[in-house]
Amino acid sequence: VDLGRKARVSERTISASQPYGSFSVGGAAARVGVRVGGAVLDLSRTASARRRPYADLVAGPLLNPLMAAGPEVWAEVRSDVREWAGTEDLVPLADVTLHLPFEVADYVDFYSSQQHATNVGHIFRPGGEPLTPNWKHLPIGYHGRAGTVVVSGTDVVRPSGQRKAPDEPAPTFGPSRRLDIEAEVGFVVGVPAARPVPIDDFDRHVFGVILLNDWSARDIQAWETVPLGPFLGKSFATSVSAWVLPLAALSSARVPPPARDVPLLPYLDDSGLEPWGLDLSLEVEINGRVVSRPPFASMYWTPAQQLAHMTVNGATLRTGDLFASGTVSGPDRDQFGSLLELSWGGRDEIETGAGKRTFLEDGDEVLLRASGAEMTLGEVAGRVLPALDT
Amino acid sequence: VDLGRKARVSERTISASQPYGSFSVGGAAARVGVRVGGAVLDLSRTASARRRPYADLVAGPLLNPLMAAGPEVWAEVRSDVREWAGTEDLVPLADVTLHLPFEVADYVDFYSSQQHATNVGHIFRPGGEPLTPNWKHLPIGYHGRAGTVVVSGTDVVRPSGQRKAPDEPAPTFGPSRRLDIEAEVGFVVGVPAARPVPIDDFDRHVFGVILLNDWSARDIQAWETVPLGPFLGKSFATSVSAWVLPLAALSSARVPPPARDVPLLPYLDDSGLEPWGLDLSLEVEINGRVVSRPPFASMYWTPAQQLAHMTVNGATLRTGDLFASGTVSGPDRDQFGSLLELSWGGRDEIETGAGKRTFLEDGDEVLLRASGAEMTLGEVAGRVLPALDT
Repeated sequence: VDLGRKARVSERTISASQPYGSFSVGGAAARVGVRVGGAVLDLSRTASARRRPYADLVAGPLLNPLMAAGPEVWAEVRSDVREWAGTEDLVPLADVTLHLPFEVADYVDFYSSQQHATNVGHIFRPGGEPLTPNWKHLPIGYHGRAGTVVVSGTDVVRPSGQRKAPDEPAPTFGPSRRLDIEAEVGFVVGVPAARPVPIDDFDRHVFGVILLNDWSARDIQAWETVPLGPFLGKSFATSVSAWVLPLAALSSARVPPPARDVPLLPYLDDSGLEPWGLDLSLEVEINGRVVSRPPFASMYWTPAQQLAHMTVNGATLRTGDLFASGTVSGPDRDQFGSLLELSWGGRDEIETGAGKRTFLEDGDEVLLRASGAEMTLGEVAGRVLPALDT
Repeated sequence: VDLGRKARVSERTISASQPYGSFSVGGAAARVGVRVGGAVLDLSRTASARRRPYADLVAGPLLNPLMAAGPEVWAEVRSDVREWAGTEDLVPLADVTLHLPFEVADYVDFYSSQQHATNVGHIFRPGGEPLTPNWKHLPIGYHGRAGTVVVSGTDVVRPSGQRKAPDEPAPTFGPSRRLDIEAEVGFVVGVPAARPVPIDDFDRHVFGVILLNDWSARDIQAWETVPLGPFLGKSFATSVSAWVLPLAALSSARVPPPARDVPLLPYLDDSGLEPWGLDLSLEVEINGRVVSRPPFASMYWTPAQQLAHMTVNGATLRTGDLFASGTVSGPDRDQFGSLLELSWGGRDEIETGAGKRTFLEDGDEVLLRASGAEMTLGEVAGRVLPALDT
């Protein structure tokens, strides 16, 4: 197999995050790779050539077999990768095509930023209590559409659907007029579970972390959402980074979550445990201009609490289950993770790299980034294409 | 492979529904079979022995490859099966183990019975308008958990979770006290779609029909459901029949849906098309006693409308996508498809084969059946096991 031009990495990039992905070169079959700085280590080929015991787990195009193998194997692979990053030939990123790195089983989206939930409450129910009574007792979440999770770089066609403004007598059909983004962090399940996962077993099941853009059509969502929640306003596309950062790379970013205002039931109580708050700095860029910098450390519910909650009713976990944080919004106006909030329900325009916006226009390019202590998450890029003719 | 005792079928059973499933005998690998009366035709083996062109599609344990092949292949297989049902050796049902017949991609649950939605509205919002303003404009639905769809006969462990009665100051954790069923009909997608599926393309994409029990923990659901909809109150288990009835077997059951009260947007307008209302009679049996007979012909939204709606925003379809009707409830008290309605929110007891109930007790056995003109859907059985110690 011709891997194209080779690249050597510097000492500096060897110490970087080394996330996992699925890549191909030219028309060759996709394989598992590791990002090392601006290049890719062909893990499929290297593990096979070196006859490593886990070689079969990384032989295919997807991460699922490796994800299912568990923490001991993950540590072994990571140790090898650290060594090989300085010795093996690498493929320049510019020469590879990146693919969705794992098969998504179920996709759950949480709603765990207090600032985001408060903003949304103020925008949709002005004058009312912004948080619902359950919000501080459990991490609110719902199932999204796994089949429309797409890899970074995939264009997103503007969805059409039913919209009805409060002053209109009946709904009309057409392209969404309030296309939005949501900047989120996603967690990828590796090891399945047939029983509830205790809060301190998080790192025995979760393989890694991705960045996620939960595209949202606010007008479609608003009309459909009562009484059973979001459906077509979300299900057209969810973009994820091409690189999955292993949990081990997050160790320096772990911080205590915000103080809790109400006592937690035991299965959600993380006091006394090593914290799973994460100090990640997100960036939302539209048409080349940064419009927001949401701080992940502000999330009220941690991913360990989300996983414990999601399984406490006996719901089983599968390899490839993906759960996302919900929109990340910090307390300041320039820290909100959606245009709904940045424009305050469409009232205020914000400046992008191609003019002012309330919601997204056709051709707009959205780029999410995230980084923390000693690591970087992969980017999530997506461009808006015009609605289909219907 | 030893197929155990053989059985011959009568002329009468040859004319029956002949649904598809996945079966195994003894410890052998699961294969695709067709139910012929009280026995199973080994389709995997017969198609291979007869060197049929589609043999590879039915060689494995699951229906997905056949489902993906499309209506021409489906018709060819069905024609062969009709012939073989009278000539081939069959395996008695008593000798086989049945498995989940297809891999579920995404699972969507609709809410398409006007009587059910009205009942739920009256029970939860007494005095208010029972139907939300959107209900007659679009088929309300949400995504459920695909990973916890289980085959008929699988025991269901009572889920635990947070419950809070209106008069309690804070939620408590424990086993659900309001475990319920929902009698539904499910539709299984065969042929994928990358674009919206027009309402008259329903039968080019949908492979077949199943019976479904959407187990529901009403107390958990009530506390969690605002603002993003049902989550843990539903995600612990959804039971489906082991047999998938091909769409062709439904032709005699097709009837016009109820008259629509409000004009429909064009993508949902089925006037002038062959109707996809279905005259199926459901039965809900608890501990051996029939407690309800929900009529599927009363459903306001048809599966063709549900499919058109589900994809109109550009959401792609995958082979194995499953969408369910929502609880089927007819106008009479003994036609309601859930205990929530039969007991009117827990107010009234109903008689089961093992005493009076409002909601399910540990050890209760639930059996759903359905039949229509010239066909029978497979049963859905499930028994309630006590909650896990937590």
